[in-house]
Amino acid sequence: ESTNLNKLPNISFKRLYVDVKTFSCVKLSFKIGILYRLYQLAVLGYIIGWVFVAKKGYQETEDAIQTSVFTKLKGVALTNSPEMGPHLWGEEDYTIPPNGEQVFFVVTNYIETPNQRMGFCPESYKVLDGRCKTDRDCEKGESVIAGHGIKTGICVKSNGTCEIHAWCPVEHSPLPQKPLLSGAENFTIYIKNVIRFPKFNFTKSNVLETDTVNYLKNCTYDHVKHPYCPIFRLGHVVSRAGSHFQDLASTGGSMGILIEWKCDLDKDYSRCKPQYSFTSLGVNNDKSVPSGYNFRYAKYYKDQNGKTYRTLYKVYGIRFDIMVNGWAGKFSIIPTVIALGSGFALLGAGAFVCDMILLYMVNTSSYYREKKFEVINRTELPKGTLCFIKAVEKK
Amino acid sequence: ESTNLNKLPNISFKRLYVDVKTFSCVKLSFKIGILYRLYQLAVLGYIIGWVFVAKKGYQETEDAIQTSVFTKLKGVALTNSPEMGPHLWGEEDYTIPPNGEQVFFVVTNYIETPNQRMGFCPESYKVLDGRCKTDRDCEKGESVIAGHGIKTGICVKSNGTCEIHAWCPVEHSPLPQKPLLSGAENFTIYIKNVIRFPKFNFTKSNVLETDTVNYLKNCTYDHVKHPYCPIFRLGHVVSRAGSHFQDLASTGGSMGILIEWKCDLDKDYSRCKPQYSFTSLGVNNDKSVPSGYNFRYAKYYKDQNGKTYRTLYKVYGIRFDIMVNGWAGKFSIIPTVIALGSGFALLGAGAFVCDMILLYMVNTSSYYREKKFEVINRTELPKGTLCFIKAVEKK
Amino acid sequence: ESTNLNKLPNISFKRLYVDVKTFSCVKLSFKIGILYRLYQLAVLGYIIGWVFVAKKGYQETEDAIQTSVFTKLKGVALTNSPEMGPHLWGEEDYTIPPNGEQVFFVVTNYIETPNQRMGFCPESYKVLDGRCKTDRDCEKGESVIAGHGIKTGICVKSNGTCEIHAWCPVEHSPLPQKPLLSGAENFTIYIKNVIRFPKFNFTKSNVLETDTVNYLKNCTYDHVKHPYCPIFRLGHVVSRAGSHFQDLASTGGSMGILIEWKCDLDKDYSRCKPQYSFTSLGVNNDKSVPSGYNFRYAKYYKDQNGKTYRTLYKVYGIRFDIMVNGWAGKFSIIPTVIALGSGFALLGAGAFVCDMILLYMVNTSSYYREKKFEVINRTELPKGTLCFIKAVEKK
Repeated sequence: ESTNLNKLPNISFKRLYVDVKTFSCVKLSFKIGILYRLYQLAVLGYIIGWVFVAKKGYQETEDAIQTSVFTKLKGVALTNSPEMGPHLWGEEDYTIPPNGEQVFFVVTNYIETPNQRMGFCPESYKVLDGRCKTDRDCEKGESVIAGHGIKTGICVKSNGTCEIHAWCPVEHSPLPQKPLLSGAENFTIYIKNVIRFPKFNFTKSNVLETDTVNYLKNCTYDHVKHPYCPIFRLGHVVSRAGSHFQDLASTGGSMGILIEWKCDLDKDYSRCKPQYSFTSLGVNNDKSVPSGYNFRYAKYYKDQNGKTYRTLYKVYGIRFDIMVNGWAGKFSIIPTVIALGSGFALLGAGAFVCDMILLYMVNTSSYYREKKFEVINRTELPKGTLCFIKAVEKK
Repeated sequence: ESTNLNKLPNISFKRLYVDVKTFSCVKLSFKIGILYRLYQLAVLGYIIGWVFVAKKGYQETEDAIQTSVFTKLKGVALTNSPEMGPHLWGEEDYTIPPNGEQVFFVVTNYIETPNQRMGFCPESYKVLDGRCKTDRDCEKGESVIAGHGIKTGICVKSNGTCEIHAWCPVEHSPLPQKPLLSGAENFTIYIKNVIRFPKFNFTKSNVLETDTVNYLKNCTYDHVKHPYCPIFRLGHVVSRAGSHFQDLASTGGSMGILIEWKCDLDKDYSRCKPQYSFTSLGVNNDKSVPSGYNFRYAKYYKDQNGKTYRTLYKVYGIRFDIMVNGWAGKFSIIPTVIALGSGFALLGAGAFVCDMILLYMVNTSSYYREKKFEVINRTELPKGTLCFIKAVEKK
Repeated sequence: ESTNLNKLPNISFKRLYVDVKTFSCVKLSFKIGILYRLYQLAVLGYIIGWVFVAKKGYQETEDAIQTSVFTKLKGVALTNSPEMGPHLWGEEDYTIPPNGEQVFFVVTNYIETPNQRMGFCPESYKVLDGRCKTDRDCEKGESVIAGHGIKTGICVKSNGTCEIHAWCPVEHSPLPQKPLLSGAENFTIYIKNVIRFPKFNFTKSNVLETDTVNYLKNCTYDHVKHPYCPIFRLGHVVSRAGSHFQDLASTGGSMGILIEWKCDLDKDYSRCKPQYSFTSLGVNNDKSVPSGYNFRYAKYYKDQNGKTYRTLYKVYGIRFDIMVNGWAGKFSIIPTVIALGSGFALLGAGAFVCDMILLYMVNTSSYYREKKFEVINRTELPKGTLCFIKAVEKK
């Protein structure tokens, strides 16, 4: 019997597989062995290339950014209507609200209805619910749906609309085709954005240290020449987002200014810089729905007798939303260990999965199995090896 | 010896377990085998049912939604106070701020204090710190805590309060029990919400393509009949959130309008639709703390002599917060591979855990072990199997 | 042969390792066994200590907090300028916007330019683009960059600046060194924050049930004595954030008030309490860039003839951002099972990794292997054990 054992060939493979179906002892063929090694290489590549290099798995990350945005517009525009005379629009007028918020609106066009007083006048013909043929169409005390006042019960036949108790006269001017503040294209927005990553106690501003006061006074953002200048020309923002300023300006629209911070805090402080991008938020695929952005506000005055009158403005313009996203990473021992550990676990699980696939799936077709595996013959093996049963069965 | 081997019964089980304690060769009993198969079925069910069907594990997801909300209110209300005469409230008046923001306030009730001028008058008796008995209670130059002005050092005994340097007369009218703008229940909010998933470059608006201008002019949101109409009646919003409009309207409150986008981008574009829901944000379990929502603002005027006077408004109303959440998924090869891989890993890990439980835990009680395992007898096995040692020990 | 088997020593170790290189049967040495047990202890400690106790892995969590913030300021300040006379600033004046928002601005200093009318006057000398030597420097119709109006083509030599069509006279007063509203330090902010965790249908307010109306009327926040009082003194907020109020007040700045909710809903309702912290958002490391926070707004009036004039305010102050974060956890069966399962999987994977390390890596150096493993001699083992081949090879 010991001679039998001495006949054992010099077996150099590393794993013996017990075939699940036939209980035979098999050895992986060279091809399968190569495949297995390739899998291991892929996992190692994944761990090193993806987890560590691309995803920086050794870093602790923070994406709960604290951010504060302050905006300031600059520029003036002169409008000159025959009724109202010249009017100069400064940032205190065209920026709504004026207090430097993250979301703000810039007036580019408007309809002014001056000297409205409480009284009785016919509803605008544009309001469907205000139209009438007889007094019965105007029920007294009811408000006009989507209209300007309360019906008095009288139908003003000359106008074809109900008389209403309202601020009179009601708004009736058409919207100027050419935006009244077309010069808004050259207004500039100064954006100051201070971010903070509380986990790392890291604070930075988009106004970089290298920016001197002189630089800031003269630069305007340009994605090639001045990618870090925090001063943006309105026209440039709109055109970078793929829209046309004069189109937007006449009926209004909505723009997003995105500020992205991707900071690798293992690198130098000065390399953590914002990236600006621009997007049009008001895109509407369908033309049947009215787009545009407008709203109304009124300025109230009192005359010598203490009677109130007002000027109503329907303003059209562009709303800017400044959105700040951020992400910071810094080396930390815990995520490194976890990344390494899960990498090894993946290697291990992979080995298991590999075995399962090889043994369960591959031998479903016996042809396949016989090509892939080399069954070690009983006579070549001493009694009592892992594969003995098979040998017996074969016999 | 070969005859011995031939006696080997036709063994059909797939796994032989080496018992860790006695080093015996055991085979799982039928019951345990069934349990094991059930576990594998459960894992497969989890992978297919939960990971793939319910959680759509084959999709790349995006929940960093870019969103832009524009709101517009419609409706008018006429108030008629004996002092101030009739006043028509349009959206430019009752919407604060008027510029179509995501968070806005609708005035439903107010206290008006007209014609205030800088001067000297007694503090309101409602202000605790303003009450006095002698002049010594009113230290000159100190401001009244939670009050309206600066103490002049005089105690107005007829009133029981200090004289103050303030806008006079101070606010004193009571809040009207019935909300002055009770008609606000029928005001409507038009909400336009454009969302964008930057990862998929997918843009959509809650104003659907199927909505024509005529539909939009006539519809109002109803969760059954018009679940996609973007026009909401204030009263409906409040009642859907479980509150009573007239209660809220008299002292104010806070409402949330939630817009949820769950978009499976593997399906048709038109199937990505918003879901609206409503919630009351001002719920206060405790009645001892004053609830409600109010604030003050003033309108400033100048008389013929250039002297400033003002009308102070303390407005009560409902604040609406529009909150947008979103999620989009689209087939991608990477998450599919990861989901499959982790499923297989789970199967593998499960097998391992199963073995551990069976072999480590089950045999802590030998009774248990003997019931669960069938020890294969030495005489039934050829020499040299996995289980040889046990067989020897038994002998 | 059966005698051979009887010679088998009483083997008490639990695992036999098939050495991958030499195919020998090895047993772990005592030291390696200890290491292995330590690893298992570490994993168990990790599962119990970190996953269950520290991270509460048995809980379902929710961090999509719904939040509504309402703020109200209290306090008055009297300013007295020689030109404009006394003016009392109440919360309706110094809070911008006045409607109780989450982000608001408190005026602490200002420059007032009264009685501006549309007309022609020289540009301010501070504006670089407005300076001129001859008329040719002032091209007619061009707006002054970062200036106040439109050039008329005339150079006002006495002033050294172009004449402009603008609101005249232009702003020229210097900023008062001492903030005009220095008393703002004692203003108070009342913050009402209602949060909701929709997954758990849990609603709570930062105004706690234990706070009575009397308590709220008298308390102010103090991180030691009154950590849950929702009323904050402006000066206290600024000093807790590490800034000096009077510095900030004169040129403006930006403050963050953070409200953090960490709620373990398995515990009592009353133990879910907010934590307040304060941070300065306007920190600028670099002194060359102008810091501060200011903006302009105008109040418009009409005289007896209906002509418009205005008062321009350039206000400096502190912006407060109220940021709410929250997290809630509650026991749930699914995360418990997942945490347990992944713990076991980790144990299993660990065992696998351990084996891999021991067998693949350790025996790369044969010295190491021989120290760590004790090869079980052939003579001590019956034929047909796992380790038979090795025994033969050794021979």
